Order: sequence, then structure tokens, then C-alpha cells
Amino acid sequence: MNADQWIDKLKWRYATKQFDPTQKIDSETWGKVEESLILTPSSFGLQPWKFIVITDDAVKQSLLPHSWGQPQVTDCSHLVVLAARSPITEAEVTEFINLTATTRGVTPEALDAYKGMMLGFLSHMDDDTRTEWAKNQVYIALGQLMSTAAAIGLDACPMEGIVPAEYDKILNLEEQGYTTVLACPMGFRSAQDKYPELAKVRYTADKLIQHI
Amino acid sequence: MNADQWIDKLKWRYATKQFDPTQKIDSETWGKVEESLILTPSSFGLQPWKFIVITDDAVKQSLLPHSWGQPQVTDCSHLVVLAARSPITEAEVTEFINLTATTRGVTPEALDAYKGMMLGFLSHMDDDTRTEWAKNQVYIALGQLMSTAAAIGLDACPMEGIVPAEYDKILNLEEQGYTTVLACPMGFRSAQDKYPELAKVRYTADKLIQHI
Repeated sequence: MNADQWIDKLKWRYATKQFDPTQKIDSETWGKVEESLILTPSSFGLQPWKFIVITDDAVKQSLLPHSWGQPQVTDCSHLVVLAARSPITEAEVTEFINLTATTRGVTPEALDAYKGMMLGFLSHMDDDTRTEWAKNQVYIALGQLMSTAAAIGLDACPMEGIVPAEYDKILNLEEQGYTTVLACPMGFRSAQDKYPELAKVRYTADKLIQHI
Repeated sequence: MNADQWIDKLKWRYATKQFDPTQKIDSETWGKVEESLILTPSSFGLQPWKFIVITDDAVKQSLLPHSWGQPQVTDCSHLVVLAARSPITEAEVTEFINLTATTRGVTPEALDAYKGMMLGFLSHMDDDTRTEWAKNQVYIALGQLMSTAAAIGLDACPMEGIVPAEYDKILNLEEQGYTTVLACPMGFRSAQDKYPELAKVRYTADKLIQHI
């Protein structure tokens, strides 16, 4: 794939307003989407997030009134809810260091400097700031998820327009230590959706990019 | 490109610790990176951001002490600074509506409902919240930028570890109404960098993904 082909894929994607409810993403392809989610980069690699994948119709239906009534929530094939850890703790830095040590075949002590840097970074943050930081990371995951969808030919509709507190209740996220940030219905665009034909609206490079 | 090939690209990418300072991204390829930045999706499509592309050695050097001394800032080919609009105003919603009308060949009045929805969304936010919202969007841009790099075979090193206020001063961003969020040096990995050989550290799907 050359750069032009990649740009074509990014132009092909759009925020899907109308999904074809009869088309489902097959499990092998969906597995790749999950692999891409797991591969998402994060600050220090700490992965302060959880992704909830909803295919159950009743649960989708229960989320609809807390999604500004947007029908993509129920018509999509897979509804992804992107949640942030709230707040990350020192114990999780230790968990991450232990995982790193195991994965890379070194002792946790060999990673003491790295651990100290992460703990120093977190020590300047109160709980609210830590949650905000984790939410920021979740937006990276959304960016990569939309890119993955474009790369492999799936449609997606990123949504900030939801009521996170209600999502948290329905998905029991608070008791697990997570909080809803975004939803992203995924599947296949309906042939009836007129939006993919509309020209993309973007400011020019003059406004958005400065060269120094 | 099939899904497996895409996953291979995501596995190929890593946060580059050491760039080859002799290798520069050619201008045609760089043009595609900028096109990808401009195509980044954002909430309502409002694009509350600016991307500063720095190739000037002296400016890179002046940013180094405000980047925790990370040499990627000076050794990279192109240093991208991702800045957020702070804060977005009602006038910019009107500017965006006018752009949408021109791009899609409709009257601005035909977009009144859309405009009202955006103004309603912003009316619940004070200036700080608007800036936080714009910063969130910038993390989407980072996610897509890293995906683009992976897609077309460029290396990147996303950085939260910078002093945004000092970047703002050097780049005169505050007076333009923007604030630095992230830096992302881009270019080509050095053959000496040992990090690409290390196994990626990721939690398992059991921890990160829940199916409902």
C-alpha cells in the first residue's frame, strides 16, 4: 500500500449516520479489530483503558436513550464503548512493570528507573487529573480505531454525544474502576445513507498547518 | 491490504527512541502526512487544532530543553507539534458552517439546525472545558498520525513529556489562540535503536476487552 492508497482510505471513511442492520462483521475480522485496539499506543505504555464490545440487542437498546437517540447504536454490528481507568494507581504501575519484565525477560528491578519516572509523573496528579489523562489516552485509541476501520474497510461512527454516567451504570463500569468516554458503533454503511456522497468539510492547509 | 497486513504494520510501529538524523522524509511523502492530518475526524468536524511542522534546526534545538532533553526532537526529520484551539468561540462555529455551506453547495441557513446543535453543545462549556475538549480532539489527531506513519512506513515518537507553556512561547502559539498539547518527532529509525527488537508490552484481551 502506498501513501496515495492510504489517503484514499482516509477519504473513504466518514462518520456513518446509517448502518445496514442486516450486515454483521464476521468474527475473524472482528478479532483483528480487537487486536488493533490492544496494540494502541499510550503514554508510557500504561494502557489506562477498557473496551466494551456490545453485540447484545437488548443492551444496545438500553443504551439508545442515553445516546441522543442516535440509531447507529442499535443498527450497528458491534458497538464499542471506550472507557478510561479512573484513576490509575501506583499499584497498577507495579503491575505494568511486572508485565514488562515478564514480556521482555528481565527482572522488575532492572526497570526501576522507568518505574520511578512513571511514579514521578503520576505523583504530580490528583485523582481527577489522572482520570483526565486516561481520557486523553482513550482518544488516541479512538483515532487508531477509526484508522483501523478505514484500513480494513469497516464503517464507524465515533460519538461524544452520549451520557457517560448512564453508560457507566448499565455497563457496571464504575465498580470496575472505569468511566465511559466515547462510543463507536461499527459495521457497514447502509446503501441509503446519503452522507458518504457529500464532500468532506476541512479547513485548508493554510489555516491548519504552519511550517517553521 | 488485508486485515493481517494492517496488524503487521501496527506491530512494526513503536515509539522511536533513536532517529537516523541523516535520513529525511521527502517532500512528496510529507505532503501525504499533512493531507492525513487535515483529514483527521473531530467532534462535529470542528477541527479545533493547528499542526506546526518544524524542520528548522535552530528551532528544534531551542525546544530540546523543554522536551525532557529527548534527542528525538532534534534528530528527527520533521517535528510535528499538535496544538489545541483555546478556547473555540461561537464565531468559529459560524466560520465552520459557512465552510460547510460552500463545500457542499447549500445555504448557511439550511444548516441552522446543525449550527444550533453545536452552539448548544458549546453553551454548556466554560473556556477551560472548551480547551479540554479541543485537547481531547488533538489526541484523535495523534492516533491517526501514528496510524498514518505505520501505514506508509515512517517512524514516529509521540511525546507528552514536553513543557507546553515553553513550546507556546517559542512558537508564538498563545497569541494565535492555540496551546501546545503534544509533540511527535517523525522520520526514520536508526539502525542502532534497540527498541524495535523488544517485544511489545500489552495486557491481554481478558483484561482490556469485555464482551456483552
